[in-house]
Amino acid sequence: MKTRAAIAVAPNRPLEIHEVELDGPRAGEVLVEVMATGICHTDAYTLEGKDSEGIFPSILGHEGAGIVREVGPGVTSVKPGDHVIPLYTPECRQCKSCLSQKTNLCTSIRTTQGRGLMPDGTSRFSLGGETLYHYMGCSTFSNFTVMPEIAVAKVREDAPFDKICYIGCGVTTGIGAVIYTAKVEPGANVVVFGLGGIGLNVIQGARMVGADKIIGVDINPAKRAMAEKFGMTHFINPLEVGRDKVVQAILDTTDGGADYSFDCTGNTAVMRQALECCHRGWGQSIIIGVAEAGQEISTRPFQLVTGRVWKGSAFGGARGRTDVPKIVDWYMDGKINIDDLITHSMPLDRINDAFDLMHEGKSIRSVVVY
Amino acid sequence: MKTRAAIAVAPNRPLEIHEVELDGPRAGEVLVEVMATGICHTDAYTLEGKDSEGIFPSILGHEGAGIVREVGPGVTSVKPGDHVIPLYTPECRQCKSCLSQKTNLCTSIRTTQGRGLMPDGTSRFSLGGETLYHYMGCSTFSNFTVMPEIAVAKVREDAPFDKICYIGCGVTTGIGAVIYTAKVEPGANVVVFGLGGIGLNVIQGARMVGADKIIGVDINPAKRAMAEKFGMTHFINPLEVGRDKVVQAILDTTDGGADYSFDCTGNTAVMRQALECCHRGWGQSIIIGVAEAGQEISTRPFQLVTGRVWKGSAFGGARGRTDVPKIVDWYMDGKINIDDLITHSMPLDRINDAFDLMHEGKSIRSVVVY
Repeated sequence: MKTRAAIAVAPNRPLEIHEVELDGPRAGEVLVEVMATGICHTDAYTLEGKDSEGIFPSILGHEGAGIVREVGPGVTSVKPGDHVIPLYTPECRQCKSCLSQKTNLCTSIRTTQGRGLMPDGTSRFSLGGETLYHYMGCSTFSNFTVMPEIAVAKVREDAPFDKICYIGCGVTTGIGAVIYTAKVEPGANVVVFGLGGIGLNVIQGARMVGADKIIGVDINPAKRAMAEKFGMTHFINPLEVGRDKVVQAILDTTDGGADYSFDCTGNTAVMRQALECCHRGWGQSIIIGVAEAGQEISTRPFQLVTGRVWKGSAFGGARGRTDVPKIVDWYMDGKINIDDLITHSMPLDRINDAFDLMHEGKSIRSVVVY
Repeated sequence: MKTRAAIAVAPNRPLEIHEVELDGPRAGEVLVEVMATGICHTDAYTLEGKDSEGIFPSILGHEGAGIVREVGPGVTSVKPGDHVIPLYTPECRQCKSCLSQKTNLCTSIRTTQGRGLMPDGTSRFSLGGETLYHYMGCSTFSNFTVMPEIAVAKVREDAPFDKICYIGCGVTTGIGAVIYTAKVEPGANVVVFGLGGIGLNVIQGARMVGADKIIGVDINPAKRAMAEKFGMTHFINPLEVGRDKVVQAILDTTDGGADYSFDCTGNTAVMRQALECCHRGWGQSIIIGVAEAGQEISTRPFQLVTGRVWKGSAFGGARGRTDVPKIVDWYMDGKINIDDLITHSMPLDRINDAFDLMHEGKSIRSVVVY
């Protein structure tokens, strides 16, 4: 079939909109009509050639929502008409990782996904006979896409696509880090470094589970108002207190340190502060931000020996098919706010504008609606 | 009263045996007759002036076992005649740390203990009118010592002092890191870096809880036999496989990485290997070894974002008064082996020989018996 898609033809080139060829779903695969997709920093990271494993030409996009239109042989968990959120972290429930019950990082299709291919080692996309590669197993910058059955989360049908698409990445990454990775408990003191989209979702996750103090740290005071709306109780600007005094300011505010801290900056110097502002004995620091290639985190081992824990979170520690539908429910129940985070909406033709808005810091999240 | 004690008069000087003055226990304190004490690397670290917070003149020693001989006003949890193990990590059960139920690092007397004093801010030891300082709140290199009530663990009376004194530090540090900090489960694959006394106790802790593969890593092949006796199932010598191939050798042996790894070396380069040999998704690395001042640990944040956890352990995460008596029981029940680890026994007069044996690598643990 034909579908309209935005093609990443090469690094640092604008996306190009074309009618591309899409082969139908094979065994264990589903055809999804993408109804909306967010534009995430990770898409930009790849488009800018910063991801050494980025593949071109490809169809980017990994934060979508849509409807199953056709299923391949053997597909049993979804049927045409089902509303779904594509999952760049699938959930096969059969691999060593899924069965460990200790991680959400399903490994069943990791190798082919990393090579821009479906699990059978081929691509469904092409243009004029030339292969177009899949991206993060999703390729939501296409009106239709094909995905493995294990990589779609079935969600309720009354949820608006142009909002819940954000649950496909940013919302789950932030809220999940609080709930699934850190397991923040009521009354805990939480510190969030970086008040972009992920940071705001960490904040509202912390509020949802009943955290006490929710301290936001950002060098941009313009982010304060929105963060407070999402639940931030205290704001620290490193440019005001001094970058080298941020840790002490947090220790003072929390009577000894954070119970949980989250890095949403990707800056390794900030990651160290996030660890060292944790409470002696039990404070846990969770790295969410993606650092530049080659950057390393460091600290004195004494920080860990005296009880701090350093961990990370990918896709919020959420199991896609199990947990994503619950997060959609939380949105529909009003427990979390997505509407205020979707600052821009546009048709596919204007997708390059969304990247510009993001780079200029003018959007929290832009969404393409098909 | 008078008691014989070994005095650390100054850094890098042999300990000197003297009859010293010991004031009796004040409110909340107990007088303990030390019956045996181990000599630990931490004592040597302080004696060599490497601990910037080391205080002289002082009475070192923190790994003892003895009998309560007198109690001060208000002491209710022990009485004269009770057998006890001194605790350099006390357990007050009332401070923020104890009440958190998340850490064993009781903070109730930390400040005075760090200054070599009893909780009321004074020392009980003196010689010719000159103050001698306490050490780690224990000072077991003295036939009699005074300790806070919250810093002694009451233990069964049929346990031999010259063996269970080792539970006062090394045994609990190693076994506790497995049981209390890492919470290793049956069937887990465990890797232990450094096969000294702590490493051997980690190994027997892992065996006790039913670990599957227990892989020891050490550059000294002479340590292999004893480690195997304690439960090691695989041995990796970095000098044989290549220091830069240790991580890969562990990944190969464990089908993807360690479930739990323990650094018992204090070497920060090894600590990094210990983290990076952990299984993607869930492997946890626990730092036990004490690094040299100024040394830092480093890794790429991707190691954590993909599910590895970096933590540390002090006194094995054990609550002194609650857990130490249980470990004594495990020894008496034959679940753990201490006898083979006590390689030398000597009177107080020969305590300097114990330091020499340790430095020459000729002992696992030497014990002074009073």
